[in-house]
Amino acid sequence: MRATVYQGTGDVRVENVPDPVIKQPTDAVVRITHACICGSDLWFYRGLDNWKPGWRTGHEWMGIVEEVGSEVRNIKKGDRVLAPFAFSDGSCEFCGKSLQTSCVRGGFWGGESNDGGQAEAIRAQFADGTLVTIPKEVENDDAILTKILPLTDVMSTGHHAAISAGVRQGGTAAVIGDGAVGLCGVLAAKRLGAERIIIIGRHEDRLDIARRFGATDVVKSKDQQAVDEVLEITKGGAESVLECVGTESSMDNAISITRPGGAIGYVGVPHGSETINLSHMFFSNITLRGGVAPARAYIPELLDDVIAGKIDPSPVLDLTVDLNGVPSGYAAMDKREAIKVMVRP
Amino acid sequence: MRATVYQGTGDVRVENVPDPVIKQPTDAVVRITHACICGSDLWFYRGLDNWKPGWRTGHEWMGIVEEVGSEVRNIKKGDRVLAPFAFSDGSCEFCGKSLQTSCVRGGFWGGESNDGGQAEAIRAQFADGTLVTIPKEVENDDAILTKILPLTDVMSTGHHAAISAGVRQGGTAAVIGDGAVGLCGVLAAKRLGAERIIIIGRHEDRLDIARRFGATDVVKSKDQQAVDEVLEITKGGAESVLECVGTESSMDNAISITRPGGAIGYVGVPHGSETINLSHMFFSNITLRGGVAPARAYIPELLDDVIAGKIDPSPVLDLTVDLNGVPSGYAAMDKREAIKVMVRP
Repeated sequence: MRATVYQGTGDVRVENVPDPVIKQPTDAVVRITHACICGSDLWFYRGLDNWKPGWRTGHEWMGIVEEVGSEVRNIKKGDRVLAPFAFSDGSCEFCGKSLQTSCVRGGFWGGESNDGGQAEAIRAQFADGTLVTIPKEVENDDAILTKILPLTDVMSTGHHAAISAGVRQGGTAAVIGDGAVGLCGVLAAKRLGAERIIIIGRHEDRLDIARRFGATDVVKSKDQQAVDEVLEITKGGAESVLECVGTESSMDNAISITRPGGAIGYVGVPHGSETINLSHMFFSNITLRGGVAPARAYIPELLDDVIAGKIDPSPVLDLTVDLNGVPSGYAAMDKREAIKVMVRP
Repeated sequence: MRATVYQGTGDVRVENVPDPVIKQPTDAVVRITHACICGSDLWFYRGLDNWKPGWRTGHEWMGIVEEVGSEVRNIKKGDRVLAPFAFSDGSCEFCGKSLQTSCVRGGFWGGESNDGGQAEAIRAQFADGTLVTIPKEVENDDAILTKILPLTDVMSTGHHAAISAGVRQGGTAAVIGDGAVGLCGVLAAKRLGAERIIIIGRHEDRLDIARRFGATDVVKSKDQQAVDEVLEITKGGAESVLECVGTESSMDNAISITRPGGAIGYVGVPHGSETINLSHMFFSNITLRGGVAPARAYIPELLDDVIAGKIDPSPVLDLTVDLNGVPSGYAAMDKREAIKVMVRP
């Protein structure tokens, strides 16, 4: 089959690789129908992660089950499924606590050891613990499938930011970042009932989506000016701040715009240690909560809402490519010509 | 009257100062009967805070009300009262949210602008919002008053660490630091029902108090060795970690010993920005929560429990001095010859 393979900075290629096969009795083999390119893929694409040539790419995917191992009970051949960006056994302490990203036998798609989703097919570990079946009544509705696709990562991650920031009915949320995750954070905050939602971003096309998703205020300035504007709008800070970028300066800004007693839900992937203004956090009792989103825990409720027509995160997918187009999709996201790319193998 | 005044590094003096008077109609003047020297006082004593000669000292105190301003309604002359280490108006947004340390008109005792508690008397701002009256039936019981005294700061702060760390009935808590706050953190974790309480400290006399307060495990090693031991005892980390020191390395250790999905309750005063391992926190979804304790919110319930004989934090007070003895009390704490000093003016 063909799959996308990292070959070096700025260099991903669609190559012929061995067909996936069942290796463990808990595996499934899934034919990919939809995948995405993620903002976090740009880290290795730009040479900022320690990736090695030959590693597979893509952690957001949906497809149709072709084969299951002998111990798989809940997933059947022919099922239309989606996967969270991490696999998990469904049975360990952390899976039991809805923190499947800390599963003791879990891992992430792609990279050194696992198949990636930007491919024709994939070996999916722990099929029962990981995959979520899409209900039969919508499994061939392409419009709905596109709306479901962002649940594999960005919508679940935006939701995790909102949950971690303690967004509440009638509350005020500020969202830092107008990438796909930030936009989904706006949608998640709206879904949880926030009355006022401020987005801090700089790209007019993205901010338009933010407004459609429920943003009531848009702040387009940078750094201290943006901080000052949010403090002015909120008269002293937002009780819930969604940090959806993952740089030291975005975290600084998040701390500066959080109301005393409030919480930052952070989901932008940090890269190592960071210097943060702990003194400010301390004297204002600001909580820092979040991390890698346990998408597997959130997908069922979000899926229900997508199918019921309550939420539609698909506007973040503004470019579609086929498998051969994956390298150009990376380039488009790298140049910020696309928010997020959908891949239809 | 006489009051303790900071004069320079390692130099506090008991000096004659003007008697306190009512300046605002919400003030009270209180004759101090009990005060403490705090571990956090050692910061300025050691020249590590930006203190200026002439500033008053002492933020932990109890006493008898001598006079109240015309707008004071709930506190009366003759009342025996205790004060949290911060004053607060009792009426702003943050006081209403039980976060009195962020009161928009509040502040801390001592320092540049306010009277300190290591003195014969004090002008107490916002008497109604700040002071808590000790019930008549125990107001002259000296043994009980000594048990109540730590509620002004260290017991409330230890409780804040435990609350912030999400200590729960039957749970596991690890407490970093065997100072007065860490010891009170143990007592607070026990009070909240933790089944296993691990203290990390190095002073045998203090660890003995920790055991009396409910510690089930004692780790006396340092740094990575201590981390390894806690990870071994807990088989992968404690769900609740109370960081009661406030240095970068203690925060590092706290992050390293927190179980995925767990929380660090931090109450050790940070001094500026700190570099923390955000990456580790991110991939384990560790929450960082806490800060300066809203003691005013906690004192009523803790006071009830002290009077009912359910908790007794007074063993942390292992040296008593009179007002003239305050400088020697600072020296004893600086040399770690005392855990915490009680002052009886």
